[in-house]
Amino acid sequence: MATLTEPTTHTTTAPAATEDRPPMEHISIICSKGTLDMAYPGLILANAARMSGIEATLFFTFWGLDIITENTVDKLHVPTVGNPSMHIPTMLGGLPGMEGMASTMMKKQMEKLDIPDVREMVEILDDSGAEMYACRMAMDMFKRTEEDLLPQVTEVISAMDFFDKAEGAQTIFI
Amino acid sequence: MATLTEPTTHTTTAPAATEDRPPMEHISIICSKGTLDMAYPGLILANAARMSGIEATLFFTFWGLDIITENTVDKLHVPTVGNPSMHIPTMLGGLPGMEGMASTMMKKQMEKLDIPDVREMVEILDDSGAEMYACRMAMDMFKRTEEDLLPQVTEVISAMDFFDKAEGAQTIFI
Amino acid sequence: MATLTEPTTHTTTAPAATEDRPPMEHISIICSKGTLDMAYPGLILANAARMSGIEATLFFTFWGLDIITENTVDKLHVPTVGNPSMHIPTMLGGLPGMEGMASTMMKKQMEKLDIPDVREMVEILDDSGAEMYACRMAMDMFKRTEEDLLPQVTEVISAMDFFDKAEGAQTIFI
Repeated sequence: MATLTEPTTHTTTAPAATEDRPPMEHISIICSKGTLDMAYPGLILANAARMSGIEATLFFTFWGLDIITENTVDKLHVPTVGNPSMHIPTMLGGLPGMEGMASTMMKKQMEKLDIPDVREMVEILDDSGAEMYACRMAMDMFKRTEEDLLPQVTEVISAMDFFDKAEGAQTIFI
Repeated sequence: MATLTEPTTHTTTAPAATEDRPPMEHISIICSKGTLDMAYPGLILANAARMSGIEATLFFTFWGLDIITENTVDKLHVPTVGNPSMHIPTMLGGLPGMEGMASTMMKKQMEKLDIPDVREMVEILDDSGAEMYACRMAMDMFKRTEEDLLPQVTEVISAMDFFDKAEGAQTIFI
Repeated sequence: MATLTEPTTHTTTAPAATEDRPPMEHISIICSKGTLDMAYPGLILANAARMSGIEATLFFTFWGLDIITENTVDKLHVPTVGNPSMHIPTMLGGLPGMEGMASTMMKKQMEKLDIPDVREMVEILDDSGAEMYACRMAMDMFKRTEEDLLPQVTEVISAMDFFDKAEGAQTIFI
């Protein structure tokens, strides 16, 4: 597959590359999912941003709260049903233990690739200067208090506060 | 957990706060999911944007059409399988009634927090000046006509039209 | 529903329309899902962008890799459980064959609307000058090599490389 290494022909007609574009300065990531496979993309993107000198702000809301909650951070699961990408037949995916098995497999795979577990990722992000916020409404909805959260969480804020924190940032929703 | 209320030490080394950043002027939200738990984030973000004086444009596509469809807006459900964050064992999640029960619980919880139901949220957004559009392709795919939609929907438009409407906006996909 | 064709009253009080906003120049789309219903939105948005003269960069990661993998691109499925929008009772959704049936229905519907299948969409995007990248970490995680990918993929890159490619772009996560 030569096109993977050689420049493809259409690049000559595509718009000019990144030279004259303003570099990204700040990324803000809304993490709304609490599954293992959707926790990692936000954490990995934030980490890549910090490594590139880009400011990173994370806002954990809805199920995403589980990523920064002491009791749940180490128990995030990979869904095996409703997830055809797993290539597990739906009937089997629902069997007891399948979800735990898939989660263990993913965790082992991440470990092999030297990717820290979710708790460690949160610590690394904190050390790197990323800001992490919990959504007040989601906290109320799931009846959680600040004491339930990981110590790396900076503050519990509202969606409106989040817009202030995300000013000038590229915002993505996961 | 003192770090939640006190400034954390790394804020001194992090980039400067929001003072000199351009404020967000316009957010455009693509709503592609029709579940109750994924309908709220878009509506709540749009509402928070309007309350902060930020222009808000919503584009409802794929399953997201259910949020602005008369026959479905009051029947949005929370998935109980394929959603490990629910902490319901997969086998139980599939039992008849479980999804309805989880949806009822979430609706009651939102009510307790004084968060309007989805239909009211759409009305409030309309009153606040948010623009809501339906995706023409999704309308065709699900064989819906303009008569099927809530009256707050401004227009049925194509993805290309959406890019016009979203010019200069921060775009997020839910 | 007259409001769909006539201008709605609130447009007069809403912020000025798009005239004085900078047009979008570049959209970068992170495709993290491998289901048929979540593959199309990214491909369709990228296509609409190219048709509007907007540069488009796609980054396939996690389950999204299936969209650009030779062995999986023609077998993407629509989830029937964990997807209440399908309006299929959860118990039935898990029956063998239901997922295949829903996927076939969606594919036929797309065909009726003259929307190319996923493989063709990738080819069209490539012809239009969109750039498509695979995530190195996801490649390692799923043990795939460049030979497993569609020839339209430009390169396998890291998340940090992606931030370079996405400089100045509006980034969305699907």
